Parts: sequence; structure tokens; C-alpha cells
Amino acid sequence: MNKSIVLLSGGLDSAVTAAIAVKKSDAAFLHVNYGQRTEARELKAFNAIADHLFIKRRLCADITYLSQIGGSALTDHSIEVPEGPSPEGVIPATYVPFRNAHLLAIAVSWAEVLGAKEIYIGAVEEDATGYPDCRRSFFDSFETTVALGTKAATAHDKSIRIITPIINRRKSEIVKKGFELNAPLHLTWSCYSDNDLACGKCDSCLLRIKAFKEAGREDPIPYATLNRI
Amino acid sequence: MNKSIVLLSGGLDSAVTAAIAVKKSDAAFLHVNYGQRTEARELKAFNAIADHLFIKRRLCADITYLSQIGGSALTDHSIEVPEGPSPEGVIPATYVPFRNAHLLAIAVSWAEVLGAKEIYIGAVEEDATGYPDCRRSFFDSFETTVALGTKAATAHDKSIRIITPIINRRKSEIVKKGFELNAPLHLTWSCYSDNDLACGKCDSCLLRIKAFKEAGREDPIPYATLNRI
Repeated sequence: MNKSIVLLSGGLDSAVTAAIAVKKSDAAFLHVNYGQRTEARELKAFNAIADHLFIKRRLCADITYLSQIGGSALTDHSIEVPEGPSPEGVIPATYVPFRNAHLLAIAVSWAEVLGAKEIYIGAVEEDATGYPDCRRSFFDSFETTVALGTKAATAHDKSIRIITPIINRRKSEIVKKGFELNAPLHLTWSCYSDNDLACGKCDSCLLRIKAFKEAGREDPIPYATLNRI
Repeated sequence: MNKSIVLLSGGLDSAVTAAIAVKKSDAAFLHVNYGQRTEARELKAFNAIADHLFIKRRLCADITYLSQIGGSALTDHSIEVPEGPSPEGVIPATYVPFRNAHLLAIAVSWAEVLGAKEIYIGAVEEDATGYPDCRRSFFDSFETTVALGTKAATAHDKSIRIITPIINRRKSEIVKKGFELNAPLHLTWSCYSDNDLACGKCDSCLLRIKAFKEAGREDPIPYATLNRI
């Protein structure tokens, strides 16, 4: 089986992506702490999911300099996490400047050392919240950049691919896929605001609740509020 | 004056690049600690150069996860720093997998928050040591990726440019340019091996010594060995 690196935040999308990746590859799991509000809870979810899927090779990388840089409600605590969905065409306050480039760069460096040729990332373009670094056009361009900037470029070796298995799925389809693959959805964490009990009010909680509803499935995690939309 | 971000390791190339950047832009200086052997000395050089050029906006970002990943003589202390020049066409043991992508990603995130549209990096393609992420083709591709993955992509705003002012210069020309611009070459640090006195034997020291000799200039820093090539 080919080696792969799976970016796993601990959320719904990355957990389903991880379940897809472990079926197709010899996966190593990568978690990144960028100083987000809910990092402690996300890290717990990461390790629980990795345990559940029997993944031994794990790396937790710290890029909390993104908090020093700020500019996002997720990393700068003086900016509030907005409640409710964002207006279309507007990049929300939760956008962390160029975040996915950092996550991918770490995955690529690790992939070069491990000899992995595939990186899985659970980005979602449809249903997404307007993040420019979640679009396939961005990943295609990053893949080209990787081909030019790594050892493979001069060794005429196979370059590293960035695989986005759920990028064109609707959130409700991702939920269905998760159930189909027996992904440990009960171990995931999606809330942007809280660490103890999912708030049920932030953009991320709202999207998740809506997705389970549309999929006709019960969300296995509890919420602080039952204010379902 | 336009705002810019300057990547400054504290070495000769980045110091000359910084001297070019401060003439043309309102510069903020970025230093990255990736767990390299000589980081303590490099950080001292960074701050000394920033003081000398009266730069107040500074950021030191820590990406020491690159040491966890390893795979390079600069970050993994079990791999020796090779002495003497590397054979042509071979990527040397000092290559840090995909390092420049990490440095640029940090610069881009900071640039988005500061509103800077230019990033200066002192990469050198000619005379270089075979690093794939030091070639202009890599930077061109990264620039395209930035245009697709940042706010500018959706806001139809001007995107961020990656400026490599010395990429096609020979090392001796960089020395001459440094003298021409009054760059603080006496404050720079190039050695890959030591923190106290430059070893004069590693690839980086050898290239520097040769460059000053070819430029017909005295290198203002002392060396542990006088074994000039």
C-alpha cells in the first residue's frame, strides 16, 4: 500500500477523509495547532480518531505564530466568532489568512521524509464558507508548486499529489459517506467557539446540524443549545 | 511607500536583500526559527541587522516542527553537516524539505494582515547548492498559488508578489551589491555548523569566503580556520 499523510483537524470533514484514506493507503496522521480557540478539544478528537483507526504514525505540529499574526476570529480572541451563516461572496471573520498553505507545507515536508506520495485533506468547496484556500484551483496550483519545489523536481521522481476526496460533496453527503464507512463521527469536534459542549450557534455548528438533518441522521454529539435550524 | 515583508535569516544573501527592500518599500522583517543548528546566532544577526536598518515591525516565527520531521543535516543533529562543496546535480544533506514554502506561507499570512503586497526573499539560483525551492520557477508557481488562495482571489484585489532581487546574481556580485548599498555585512551570519565563530569549512562558509575573494573584498567576520579556498 502507498504511504499517505492525512491532515486531521478532528472535525467531521477530516474524519470522513481519514476514513477514506485508511482504506486506500498506509496513512500517517497530521494535526496542526494554529492557536485556534478550540485547539485543546480538537487535539483530543484527533487522538481519539487516530486511536480508533489504529494509526501509530502521528505528528502534531505547532504553528501558533498564526495567533501572533492574527487577522482571524479563530486565532485573535478580540475578534468575535460570528453567529449564523455568512452572506454569500463575503469571506467570513473565521478565515485564517492562507491557513491551508501552512498545513499543506507541513504535510509535504513530512511526506518527503516518509516517502509518501499522497496528501489527503478534507477541504470542501461546495457548501463552503467562502475560504479561498479551500478551492480545488488552489490545491491544483499548490500541487504544481510542490512538484517544482521538492526533491522530486530534480530527481525526476514521482511528485506528491494532494487528494481532496470530498471537495465537491455537499455536507449532507459527507455525513452519509461517514456512516457508510463507519467513520467515528461520535469522536469528531466541529464547534468554532467552545471546548466543552458544542455551542450549536456558530457557523460551523450550524452547517453540521443542517447536514445531519438533511442526511436524515442523528448527530451523535450533544449541543449546548437545541436551537436547530 | 508600499508595505513589504522581508524574510531575513541573518545571512549574507538576506541582509543584502533587506538593504534593497528598505530602499524601495516600507519593510517589516520576518525571521523563522526552524530548529536549525545555528538559530541562536542567526536570531542575534537578525535583530542586529533590523536595529541597524531601523526596522520596528518584526516577527519571529517558530516552526521547530521541522526538527521533529527531520530529514536534513540542518535540523537533525544525527546527520552531519558535510564539509566542502556538494557535487553538481546532487541535493545536499543540508536541504530542509520544502523549507521555503513554509517561510513564504508565513510571510503571505502576515502580508494579508498588514496589507503588504510584496515579499522579499534572498534566494539565489546561480551559485546555489541545488535546493529545488530556491529556483525562480518555484517562486513563480508559489505566487500563482498565493493569488488563488488568499483574500485577493475573491476580492479582485491586487495579489501578493514574491520578489527575489538577487536570484540570478553570483555570490561575488551579491557581496559587491552589499558594499554598494552599505548593507551591514559585518552583522551577518552564514555558518551552518557553529554558533560562536564561523567554522570556515561548511558548504555555506566556503561559498561565502570564495565570494568575498572573487569580489576583491575583505570579509568583515572572523573564522575559526584560515583555510581559504
